[in-house]
Order: sequence, then C-alpha cells, then structure tokens
Amino acid sequence: MKVLDPSIIAKVFTDEVKFEIEKENYTINIIGFLASDDLASNTYAEYTKKACESVGINFSLKKVDKSSIQDLILEANLDSTVHGIFVYYPIYGTKQDNTIKDLVSPKKDVEGLTTYWATKLYNNERFHSVGTQSFKSILPCTPLAILKILEKTDLYSEYGLPFQDKTITIFNRSEIVGKPLAYMLGNDGAKVFSFDIDGVLEITNTEAKETNISRQEALKQSEIVITGVPNKNFEKISKHEVKQNIVALNFSTIQNFTKEAIEYVDIYIPRVGPLTIAMCIKNSLRLYKNYHSNEY
Amino acid sequence: MKVLDPSIIAKVFTDEVKFEIEKENYTINIIGFLASDDLASNTYAEYTKKACESVGINFSLKKVDKSSIQDLILEANLDSTVHGIFVYYPIYGTKQDNTIKDLVSPKKDVEGLTTYWATKLYNNERFHSVGTQSFKSILPCTPLAILKILEKTDLYSEYGLPFQDKTITIFNRSEIVGKPLAYMLGNDGAKVFSFDIDGVLEITNTEAKETNISRQEALKQSEIVITGVPNKNFEKISKHEVKQNIVALNFSTIQNFTKEAIEYVDIYIPRVGPLTIAMCIKNSLRLYKNYHSNEY
Repeated sequence: MKVLDPSIIAKVFTDEVKFEIEKENYTINIIGFLASDDLASNTYAEYTKKACESVGINFSLKKVDKSSIQDLILEANLDSTVHGIFVYYPIYGTKQDNTIKDLVSPKKDVEGLTTYWATKLYNNERFHSVGTQSFKSILPCTPLAILKILEKTDLYSEYGLPFQDKTITIFNRSEIVGKPLAYMLGNDGAKVFSFDIDGVLEITNTEAKETNISRQEALKQSEIVITGVPNKNFEKISKHEVKQNIVALNFSTIQNFTKEAIEYVDIYIPRVGPLTIAMCIKNSLRLYKNYHSNEY
Repeated sequence: MKVLDPSIIAKVFTDEVKFEIEKENYTINIIGFLASDDLASNTYAEYTKKACESVGINFSLKKVDKSSIQDLILEANLDSTVHGIFVYYPIYGTKQDNTIKDLVSPKKDVEGLTTYWATKLYNNERFHSVGTQSFKSILPCTPLAILKILEKTDLYSEYGLPFQDKTITIFNRSEIVGKPLAYMLGNDGAKVFSFDIDGVLEITNTEAKETNISRQEALKQSEIVITGVPNKNFEKISKHEVKQNIVALNFSTIQNFTKEAIEYVDIYIPRVGPLTIAMCIKNSLRLYKNYHSNEY
C-alpha cells in the first residue's frame, strides 16, 4: 500500500495561481460568510482564509448571524468589488441550506455549488457561452479535487477517456460530492456504481439507471472505491470485499475502510481537503478573470 | 496574446519525479547514444543528461561511432543495470534510422518511439497487460508534452473527452510527433486535420480518412493550430487565416506563424523542448518501476 497525499498535489495548483496573480498583479477579493458555531465549519473557514491569503487573494471572513445571511449574500452579489463568495455550511442543517446555496450568483460561486453550475455538469455542458466568448464551466471543488488526485494513479489514461473500461464504486450520493463526482467519472468513461441510503444507481456517460447490484458484487468489479459515509454504523469496507491492486479513497471524517483493507490496496488516499481548497482557489481566479472579460 | 512557457510546467513534472526518486531511494540508470556530429543532437543530448541528473537519474552519455550503434543498443537491451535507452537522431538521416529505432527494447524505450508502443497508441490500447498486472503504455515524449501544455488552456475540459467538439489543425505528420499527436487528440474528442507534403488526413477517434480540405478551410474551423514544419519555404500562417481566440503552438525550430498572427492569437506556445525532456524523465521512472515489478 502506498499513501497518496493531496497536500503535495495541492501545492502545485496553488503555486500556479500564486504565480499568475503576482505576474498579472490581480486584486482578487473573496468574501466568506460563517453563520455557524459548528467546529468543523469554523476550522474550514479559517483554512480557506489562510490558503487564499497565501496565494495573494484578499479574503474577508464575516462571522454573521443566521438571520442576516440571505441579505448579506444578495448584497455581496451586487458588490462589484467582490469576485467570489464562500458560504460555510451547515447553517440550518435543513433544506433551507439549499435555498441559501442558490442565492449566491453563479458568477461569484467559488465552490461551484449552485444549481446553475450543477445543471450544466449533469447535462455535460462543459462550456458556458456569452456572446462570441466561451468560458469554462465552474466545477464543484471536492469532486474536482478527487479527479485531480485520481489523475496521479496508474489507472488514469493520458489521452482519450481517462477511465474507459474502469469500474468505480462510490458510497455517497450527496449533491455536493458524491453525485457530481459520479457523473464526472461516468463522463470520463467509467461505469460508476453510486451507493446511498436510498438505493444504488449505475451511471455511465450522462445516464443514470437504478440497479439492484449488491455492495459485494459492485466491489468485486471495481478498480477504484471511493467512500464518504459520515456514519459510524456503516459497515467498513473489508479486505475480502475488494479486488487486488485497487485505488481506495475515503473523504469522510469517519474511516470507512478497515485497517486490513487499507493495508491491502495498492494506493490509499486518506483525505482530499487541501486539494478541495486548492480547487476553490483555482475557481476564484477563473471567476475573477471571467468577471473582467468584456462580455461576461 | 499570452505566451505559455513550457519550462514552468516542465518543472512541476520533474519536481514530482525528483521527489519520488529521493523518497524511494531509487537508482535509475539511463544510457544515451550519440552517433552524430549534428549540433542540435549534441545540444539535445547534453540537455537530457543535465535534466536527468538534476532529478537524481544516473545518465551515461556515450559518444559512439555510427558503425557500432546497433551492437551497442543490443548490448544495452541485455544489460540488467540499464533501465532506459536514449538514441539521438539523425544518425544516417535515412530509413536506416527507423531500423535502429526499433532495435531498442520497448521495455527500455524512454522516448516511446518503437513500433511496439506506436502500434499500441494507434490501436488505442492504453494499457499493457502482463500476467494479472496492467501497466500504462509508454507514450512518445513530444506529443505527450504538447497534450500537457494544451491542458493548461481554457479549451481543455477537466472531465470527459478533453477536446470534444474542438477542431485542431496540425502541420506535420512525422512518425515522431505529428502523427501520434493527431491520433491522441483525435482520441481526445477533437476533429484533427493533419497536413503534410503527401496530403491531408482527417482524424477522429482512431479513424483517419483522406480529405481534400484546403489549408484555409481547415484553419477557418480550428480552435487550435499546431505547426512543426522545418522548411523555410513553408508559407507562414497569417493572421487573416485563423479564427479569433485560438491557441497556436509551433514546435519547429523555424517560425511557422507570421508576427501578426502570433500577436493576434489568444495563447501562443513558442516551443515544447523542456517539457519533452520532462516527459522522457517521467517515462524513465515508469520504465524503472515496471522493470522492478514482478511480472514485467
């Protein structure tokens, strides 16, 4: 087993952004709204602030009241000096958080979480045309980070569909990570089995269909296994369930693989956090540049 | 116009290899055969030696006589302490050079130039299976370098077929660069017009068909234009022939675009050399690791 650490890969991306910001003398302003006492959210907010500042992006972190968040987002949308907006969740921890998510203007959506970008992703529209100009769509940071780590493994192909003829199982179909990730990997040529509490989907290209495949059968076919189950009752994936020489990735804060399974796999990726932040930084630069092009 | 310099991108790749060689304490031995007085070959040989040594790869550069080159390659193929072989061309500058090319064992073919790897590429076989293990195919260094630079442009898509719905014109269909590059980009979803003195091919997926399209018509459709024509009589590509916002890349030592065309394009890539060498270094590490796996 070999561990692949995302922080080394993250540095490559942040260095690139830093270099461009310095060279072009860009002034990029990002605003972050923290309306939660949740410890993880607070830590994540501090991390993103530090990471943005380390590449030369101005980051203003506002600790705000739940009741004012909607107005503050709308204000930031209209503020021409603000190029990107971060919102730290959970705020209410209910469906209301989804409503808040979609208040952020897609033009300032650093994390790529708005329905606008998500719809583009699910429809496989990878560019966004305004007038005669074409802009790359904004992609959600964690799924994009996972793709960028998987690119470093020998399962990734340098040209053509990167994961053609590969089978991938993902445990998590959240709107933020598991679902967009499954579609992106499906577009990358893989057959993806997407597990969540409400069932299993088989995703290839942009098509998703229900399937009754068992966890054991899906794992028996998979060269890549990705887990993000924040539940202690999840039965950890064991050595006996997986094939030889697989790539295993866990992005949950709870370990979803047994110790023996981790020892057994070819490549183990224990987290993606630092690379998620690097992708947010990359998105910030993209939003800034789009914002300053004539027709955006 | 913005210039994209391959040397910055190259450093990312060589740093990665350097890091792994140090961490794993690998001893990688590469041998280079120089049987030519050609100044460019000599410079290239010195560059590759320096670049390999800078990442911790042992590089033995042998200046040899034309008449002994075949025997020396066969010897190096059998020498278990040698992990990779470089041969600097032109040697005879005739078809005999192709015969020499194929004497190098594919297992030691750092540059990915042997017919063994080329056939895999044209058949879109991206992996190479031995027993139960699967290894990534070795790809030719310059075309791979060109792909890695194009990945940095906004025309590249992060998931799915990277150049879907894009049209690319390439002037050069050499066995070393233009032809493999056209097939790789065709596999990447692009429609490729491949120009050379013996006609024009349209390449999509793994299919190539003859076409009568004119240079002007091909250029009018292309978002990416790549030139590698080592001929002063080539009519330079002018501003009036290309679309707006294109990516232009010239890998010939002779400038194939007019000054005005270069000023007019969105991104101009003036050379690929440093990144070609970085890809050779990446291939060296891959050959070394394959060599030390049980079943290779």
